[in-house]
Amino acid sequence: MRILLINANTSDYVTQKVASVARTIVSPGTEVIAVTGEFGANVIATRTELAIANHACLDLLAKNAEGCDAVVIAVSYDVALWAAREMLTIPVIGITEAALLTACQLGTRIGVVMFGPRVLPVYQELAASYGFASRIAGWRGVDTSAPYAAGNQDEADRLAIAAANSLVEQDGCEVVVLAGAVMAGVPQRLQAQVPVPLLEGVSCAMLQAESLTRLKPIKPRAGSLAALPARAQVGLSDALAAQFGKKESEYGNGA
Amino acid sequence: MRILLINANTSDYVTQKVASVARTIVSPGTEVIAVTGEFGANVIATRTELAIANHACLDLLAKNAEGCDAVVIAVSYDVALWAAREMLTIPVIGITEAALLTACQLGTRIGVVMFGPRVLPVYQELAASYGFASRIAGWRGVDTSAPYAAGNQDEADRLAIAAANSLVEQDGCEVVVLAGAVMAGVPQRLQAQVPVPLLEGVSCAMLQAESLTRLKPIKPRAGSLAALPARAQVGLSDALAAQFGKKESEYGNGA
Amino acid sequence: MRILLINANTSDYVTQKVASVARTIVSPGTEVIAVTGEFGANVIATRTELAIANHACLDLLAKNAEGCDAVVIAVSYDVALWAAREMLTIPVIGITEAALLTACQLGTRIGVVMFGPRVLPVYQELAASYGFASRIAGWRGVDTSAPYAAGNQDEADRLAIAAANSLVEQDGCEVVVLAGAVMAGVPQRLQAQVPVPLLEGVSCAMLQAESLTRLKPIKPRAGSLAALPARAQVGLSDALAAQFGKKESEYGNGA
Amino acid sequence: MRILLINANTSDYVTQKVASVARTIVSPGTEVIAVTGEFGANVIATRTELAIANHACLDLLAKNAEGCDAVVIAVSYDVALWAAREMLTIPVIGITEAALLTACQLGTRIGVVMFGPRVLPVYQELAASYGFASRIAGWRGVDTSAPYAAGNQDEADRLAIAAANSLVEQDGCEVVVLAGAVMAGVPQRLQAQVPVPLLEGVSCAMLQAESLTRLKPIKPRAGSLAALPARAQVGLSDALAAQFGKKESEYGNGA
Amino acid sequence: MRILLINANTSDYVTQKVASVARTIVSPGTEVIAVTGEFGANVIATRTELAIANHACLDLLAKNAEGCDAVVIAVSYDVALWAAREMLTIPVIGITEAALLTACQLGTRIGVVMFGPRVLPVYQELAASYGFASRIAGWRGVDTSAPYAAGNQDEADRLAIAAANSLVEQDGCEVVVLAGAVMAGVPQRLQAQVPVPLLEGVSCAMLQAESLTRLKPIKPRAGSLAALPARAQVGLSDALAAQFGKKESEYGNGA
Amino acid sequence: MRILLINANTSDYVTQKVASVARTIVSPGTEVIAVTGEFGANVIATRTELAIANHACLDLLAKNAEGCDAVVIAVSYDVALWAAREMLTIPVIGITEAALLTACQLGTRIGVVMFGPRVLPVYQELAASYGFASRIAGWRGVDTSAPYAAGNQDEADRLAIAAANSLVEQDGCEVVVLAGAVMAGVPQRLQAQVPVPLLEGVSCAMLQAESLTRLKPIKPRAGSLAALPARAQVGLSDALAAQFGKKESEYGNGA
Repeated sequence: MRILLINANTSDYVTQKVASVARTIVSPGTEVIAVTGEFGANVIATRTELAIANHACLDLLAKNAEGCDAVVIAVSYDVALWAAREMLTIPVIGITEAALLTACQLGTRIGVVMFGPRVLPVYQELAASYGFASRIAGWRGVDTSAPYAAGNQDEADRLAIAAANSLVEQDGCEVVVLAGAVMAGVPQRLQAQVPVPLLEGVSCAMLQAESLTRLKPIKPRAGSLAALPARAQVGLSDALAAQFGKKESEYGNGA
Repeated sequence: MRILLINANTSDYVTQKVASVARTIVSPGTEVIAVTGEFGANVIATRTELAIANHACLDLLAKNAEGCDAVVIAVSYDVALWAAREMLTIPVIGITEAALLTACQLGTRIGVVMFGPRVLPVYQELAASYGFASRIAGWRGVDTSAPYAAGNQDEADRLAIAAANSLVEQDGCEVVVLAGAVMAGVPQRLQAQVPVPLLEGVSCAMLQAESLTRLKPIKPRAGSLAALPARAQVGLSDALAAQFGKKESEYGNGA
Repeated sequence: MRILLINANTSDYVTQKVASVARTIVSPGTEVIAVTGEFGANVIATRTELAIANHACLDLLAKNAEGCDAVVIAVSYDVALWAAREMLTIPVIGITEAALLTACQLGTRIGVVMFGPRVLPVYQELAASYGFASRIAGWRGVDTSAPYAAGNQDEADRLAIAAANSLVEQDGCEVVVLAGAVMAGVPQRLQAQVPVPLLEGVSCAMLQAESLTRLKPIKPRAGSLAALPARAQVGLSDALAAQFGKKESEYGNGA
Repeated sequence: MRILLINANTSDYVTQKVASVARTIVSPGTEVIAVTGEFGANVIATRTELAIANHACLDLLAKNAEGCDAVVIAVSYDVALWAAREMLTIPVIGITEAALLTACQLGTRIGVVMFGPRVLPVYQELAASYGFASRIAGWRGVDTSAPYAAGNQDEADRLAIAAANSLVEQDGCEVVVLAGAVMAGVPQRLQAQVPVPLLEGVSCAMLQAESLTRLKPIKPRAGSLAALPARAQVGLSDALAAQFGKKESEYGNGA
Repeated sequence: MRILLINANTSDYVTQKVASVARTIVSPGTEVIAVTGEFGANVIATRTELAIANHACLDLLAKNAEGCDAVVIAVSYDVALWAAREMLTIPVIGITEAALLTACQLGTRIGVVMFGPRVLPVYQELAASYGFASRIAGWRGVDTSAPYAAGNQDEADRLAIAAANSLVEQDGCEVVVLAGAVMAGVPQRLQAQVPVPLLEGVSCAMLQAESLTRLKPIKPRAGSLAALPARAQVGLSDALAAQFGKKESEYGNGA
Repeated sequence: MRILLINANTSDYVTQKVASVARTIVSPGTEVIAVTGEFGANVIATRTELAIANHACLDLLAKNAEGCDAVVIAVSYDVALWAAREMLTIPVIGITEAALLTACQLGTRIGVVMFGPRVLPVYQELAASYGFASRIAGWRGVDTSAPYAAGNQDEADRLAIAAANSLVEQDGCEVVVLAGAVMAGVPQRLQAQVPVPLLEGVSCAMLQAESLTRLKPIKPRAGSLAALPARAQVGLSDALAAQFGKKESEYGNGA
């Protein structure tokens, strides 16, 4: 099985960090192909960068999804998630959606810890768009960008633990999601200091990518996720332009 | 890996049917242990039977979960799901929750087809309790009990296909869940005649049980799902009574 | 008029305490018959115990409802409420539903005080299931179990008053419900120290039981609350098994 | 016990019709005092008339509530309900709120039948304002004004029965409310032809008025329902102006 | 263009203050006609006064709307708003609705500051009735009535600034509405001390009144806002009574 | 005043059609500058094209907003709306948001007619993201693309009228929005055949752009819409890259 791991940011550091954790999660025999965005922000942290990343993400998918069995979008805003599900014929997983869905199975009240208070409303809009808003009992925005770089994580860890425990004690959360692709692998380091399950999205997403690949859902032939018809485009990369009006026989996967 | 498949109904027919499908879904090396309820309804189809099955399900779990890695509750009302998550230290999956969560990753608008219009509100209450009500764009109650017995399924299949297609055409559903443990294996038979992914809960649940086992979330030490303290009980089976006040060292699993 | 007061816990202390208050509430000529659960928890305070109590409650109803005009389920989780409404032909009242409905007529923003923070989410799920979640403006979980036993209640009273006043001052609540069957009679003791109406469920429920008995709603002949058809059961008490497939002429009440 | 029945319309026909039914519902010894609006619409059936009736209703209450134990506002829009709860020290019941609350205890999915499609959104806004919108599974607007006058009701009955049965069959309603004060007494006439409980608000409200009178909730001393302070007014009737800044000792009831 | 500015309070001080700001907002050539309520409260600050003001507002409109192009109801509870939209043929704007709609275009999370904590729930009910509740991320009730009179506003300003900044810092609000007609003109004075846009309703409403006048929407001929049919009324002012059953040719505006 | 009208599609036909209507709406002295997307779809009609258009829209804004007073994004999916509000210092209006906000002032229940059933869920997600979902009482997807080209519009008109009238009669809508930039100017043509106000977004947006320009809200200095800090970018157009880390003195407008 081959899973494409998309980092729509343009910094390779995060891609490698995330991919190395992802490879420890998947089953023996599953290959993880990790790619980095070709244009846009080093690290998406504003609405503008996120809007641009929609294009960058689809472009990356158009160039790299061929021959893969599933895609994991490893940007915690789940950028272009539904567009990717429309454009491709294979399962596409977003890491924050994945973490929230897994959290729904582990606790009734979910807490979310994210880094950078500026984007807190963006995460809240994302959760609301999934129809899960009522399950999220508390949010904490931690004000540090340390996890986005190598170097000492002690302070970031301390803040994340405090935020998680506050969610448990103040808001009655029974499971806590650490949002952000760079949280890959972090729950193991912090779990002992938090009394409820700590989740992050990359691990959840890799497992779900394997599950959905095994489930083999069909590509919809109706609705807003049906295959892209042929349509006039201007100025797109060849790979992206080629996604429109594909014959079914050209699909790389068993749709 | 060993997954306990619980049928809280008292009819072995459904247990065997479901287990045989479940065994085709799991990975090589995963053992499926299927057990049948010891008291209550042959087939749960009323609120009263469902209420009683809460006890039957926990009793069955208390007697059989020892040594297992995860539980799948294969009753489509997800009976006793959160109580089981409290009582046990291993992941517990409900088949309807599992199908709905998977559906969330495959389509924006979910349709649900269930058998027996009498219980339609019960399913709707279940979906609402998960906080997913806004994702479900349509419901269809098919009026036949044929799937609960051996014998010709042509008429039931025809009705299910018509219901699913009506959900696509009338309600804009992009994925359809066939509710009911007895729907295990049915999507493969009907998929060709429905233009969006058809799901059923047993397959989704088995895959998620494997995933959660691999994820190894901790047992909560806080909140409404923390381990059961010692508490006075009357008239329970020995196995069920023994679930209260267990020492952590007695847990059969790596909590 | 004869009202059956069900305590699905197995401790007679609470039954007697609740019944003695209930008898001060009802009209002259109304008889209150109080019964205690035959199996399960002394005091329900976990999800597991509550799940088991569904069975215990229905069993108790099957053995005792004959000849009664209405039922009050005096467990604050309103255990088996809708199942009981299906199984029986007489009105069935849950004490927390009763208190919340009465609260809706006394204030726009409702506060709820309950004992034992562990079960706070269970109450919240209950309120949400009734569709009243938006009316509840604040919750307080008081951490004491003193009300569940005889003995000095000063500390518990002090905590309840503080919680109620906090709901008024911090959350703008205009009416406060003290959840828990053991709160029967307590509002009178505490009301002078709280500036908005204090309610508890037993009193509200007894009054509503009398009202509904006088209203004489029919037993539904359609939907999920219609009479139980004959259905195959295993291992139930004779009384409980006899609830399925009753002829209408066997009904003890004027349905 | 003395219950004030308010008809804020200016037609005495409806007042007498409603009062005669109300008197059959209350306990022996309960007196029903029925009053009719002094200005405004004969029969409120537009938003404009309803807005004016807010004043008419409070004026009527100011002139007549003295010495009563509870008030029932017998206008199905529950006109001025919360203002009346603020202005007075005795319980105030609205007939549509009353019917909906009772319906919540009799079925999970409520249907509402009302007369005059023009005001359907007004009823829907009312139900939404109570926080009950999610409990109402269907609405039917019957296009006849026959119930507002004496004369043959056969056609109106036939339409109401058809609407109620459509709510049961199409929308899965388990209880149906006939909205409108003029529906007082009608359920008894139609019930045999509808398979789920039929309710109307006057009966429910009279019973709840008696119950709340017996419950004796205090007058709030905090929040938006606390007693009216002295405040400058212009051009109100003496009785209405006198409601502001009353001394507690002037209250006619045991607040 | 001629805009009627309605103050349904009976104090001329507020009318003049509001009108003077309104005249600085409108385009050259737009005339603002400001009128004051003829009966009811000097300053509406209770539910009872608000209920009465429904009548006063419509009465004032009936007497003054002739010949105007649009109406702005300058009472922050948007009193009688939908009734006015039914009764008249010209656009009617409520100042709080106007401020909230404008706020929706300036920030994702809206904060509201109002004066007088007693009426906080009334504002919350208003916002909920518009379907905007989910957009409002925080409320602050400032406990001063200084803005309703001439005199030093320093303390009121300080409290309003503190409330607004708290909404930004604690609740993540991205735009803040100062509720109350007397806030007309205040944002300019306070804006420098708050880092997100400060709005008040009169300015927003005047601009929207001009816009809607230019848009020229038709008077609905169907639904709950269609022209008032002839209907029997008692005891209304001649002007108000004349609103029922108007011939279309009598309309003063281009409906 | 100068308003930038953005068409993020790459077909100039729609741009010119929309601009010509927009110029009939604005005040004398307001200049409308219309620009067309430089890359992406001729006509956005899939999720993939919409995702790409986020980038195209921001790129177009970066190149053209300098010197303008407000922006109208004339793509009915309101593409990149909140990102544009973050990136720029001037008001930004989306045409569908504009139409829905105006509709909120004209009717309680809103209907929406859009062209192309495939994108119906995309519009529904958009409305939900604004928090207005509860105001929209009905949707109709008309299956024709005729409005996106010159030529006879009779059939499209007939379908739109039928859809609008169905919304009025079946769903009780009191105002109807025709979604789509190409609906600019169409309501005037169809209004006579629909009994409630017909709106389209371009007219509403142009009026609101003028209003917001006159209101002069400040650029937020806090939250997710504050000015873009300097951040590392790769592969963006010079104009777009220059949006990050602008000094305030560089802003072209009076923020």
